[in-house]
Amino acid sequence: MSFELSLNTGTTPNLNLHEAVEAAARAGLTHIGPWRHLLEEAGGAQRAADIIKEGGLQASTLCRGGFLTATSNEAQKEAFESNRKAIEEAAAIGAGNLIMVVGGLPSAAHVLGGTGDPQDKDIVGARDRVARALDQLVPVALDHGVCLVLEALHPMYAADRAVLSTLGQALDLATAHPAEAVGVVVDTFHVFWDPQLQQQIQRAGHERRLASYQICDFNLPIASNALQSRGMMGDGHIDFPSISRWMTKAGYQGPVEVEIFNDEINGQDADLTLAAMSERYQSLVLPHLEQAAGIQPASAIN
Amino acid sequence: MSFELSLNTGTTPNLNLHEAVEAAARAGLTHIGPWRHLLEEAGGAQRAADIIKEGGLQASTLCRGGFLTATSNEAQKEAFESNRKAIEEAAAIGAGNLIMVVGGLPSAAHVLGGTGDPQDKDIVGARDRVARALDQLVPVALDHGVCLVLEALHPMYAADRAVLSTLGQALDLATAHPAEAVGVVVDTFHVFWDPQLQQQIQRAGHERRLASYQICDFNLPIASNALQSRGMMGDGHIDFPSISRWMTKAGYQGPVEVEIFNDEINGQDADLTLAAMSERYQSLVLPHLEQAAGIQPASAIN
Repeated sequence: MSFELSLNTGTTPNLNLHEAVEAAARAGLTHIGPWRHLLEEAGGAQRAADIIKEGGLQASTLCRGGFLTATSNEAQKEAFESNRKAIEEAAAIGAGNLIMVVGGLPSAAHVLGGTGDPQDKDIVGARDRVARALDQLVPVALDHGVCLVLEALHPMYAADRAVLSTLGQALDLATAHPAEAVGVVVDTFHVFWDPQLQQQIQRAGHERRLASYQICDFNLPIASNALQSRGMMGDGHIDFPSISRWMTKAGYQGPVEVEIFNDEINGQDADLTLAAMSERYQSLVLPHLEQAAGIQPASAIN
Repeated sequence: MSFELSLNTGTTPNLNLHEAVEAAARAGLTHIGPWRHLLEEAGGAQRAADIIKEGGLQASTLCRGGFLTATSNEAQKEAFESNRKAIEEAAAIGAGNLIMVVGGLPSAAHVLGGTGDPQDKDIVGARDRVARALDQLVPVALDHGVCLVLEALHPMYAADRAVLSTLGQALDLATAHPAEAVGVVVDTFHVFWDPQLQQQIQRAGHERRLASYQICDFNLPIASNALQSRGMMGDGHIDFPSISRWMTKAGYQGPVEVEIFNDEINGQDADLTLAAMSERYQSLVLPHLEQAAGIQPASAIN
């Protein structure tokens, strides 16, 4: 079985882990990608692992580690400890993949409640710190059999969330490490605009780092809270057929995770959301993944 | 004389051309980059040329041509005619540079009042159409001694305004044409996040296509109208010293144009805006341009 649909719990933020697992199972899904705070709410990673298993699901990813751009020794140690714990949690729930959002500039640290020098806007330096922090985390990841999955975020978040902005940059950063320790995720919202996208997906496949495929659409206008601009597939401007074919051609056959931050969708009944995402996945994404894999699509391509 | 400060009239949208020229001259500026609608309001490009000359200024750029992604023959012809007229206007006002915003996806054409197939989200195809339209415009540009200056826009505008998203992509597109006919602009807001920025600025210099330097900051949070997120230098998260040094090292010595779309700044008294942009330019940008050029900065670098 390939291309299993997975619910990223960011799509259903009002559900706890148990509720999210039940909703996903009711909708016929086999995978879930939980956020860390749900593990904590559930009483820890071991208990979360049981909940996922009892619901008949598997974890596709754990969201998220990262935030590696702090400048002080103390904050860097804190980030290392937090990421070590995240790696342990990912291993505990059987998620081979820990999604990594690498963090932004010190000048914008306050946006996410952190602290940093308001004058430090040195993006080259921040990228350097990410590379050095990764060097330290890779042995921990290898010990636990967890892949650190670098997520290039849309450049609109380069200042406050992730100085990692393209798939090519993520692959350059990964080069120093074994493929089982450092991979990349293709999140359509973040990378659909990239003129090098096809070529870098191909490269990621060739380098065996294509660890996760996350989907949602890019809506216009951009939401007043820019983080909430992620849309249901088909509602925005992303060419899912092309990107999905490129993923398959590059050898990807894993789960496909739907991660939508969107006030309207997040506020509605979760069963409705899951029904819509299944339907859109089956009409807009899956047939193109399957066709490129030489599998006769169950539903016609339209 | 190098690195002259220029007022892009997008920064003072409530002024007509005559008023903008007078305000810029009062502030001690030597250059102006007008938008096309101001030429029309002024009674045409010849009259506009007189206004600029009588004010003692020179035109650094004309904003803007482009919008080359339409699919129908009729709309493509219309775009060609509009761009031919823009080239003539640029020549008439003595602006060697016509800034080109290449246009977005058919699915998002309605955002700017156009029409397009709501299902056409093929960004690769749209980029192809830009290349073919450019082939047609280059002979016209050469005839008039005007450089078509490709502007990579921030990827947050990839769907609705410009499928040209990086400086590297702009240079790839330019390769087919002589450097005097097709250049590139480095607009800090649009490109500050690019991991290849230093390298592509260097390449642009080497290929003699570095036609314009436009500056403003990237503010957070992103404005509710995403177009209005451009900030006064120093108010956001862009590392002007580094980018400015890279520009000089790549051989740029031309005017530096300030283009700020921002409700608060655009609404205030234009003399205040011009005083602030001059002060910020002299403290945050100019010393770094000059130092890299081996010129002793008039003001200390802080």
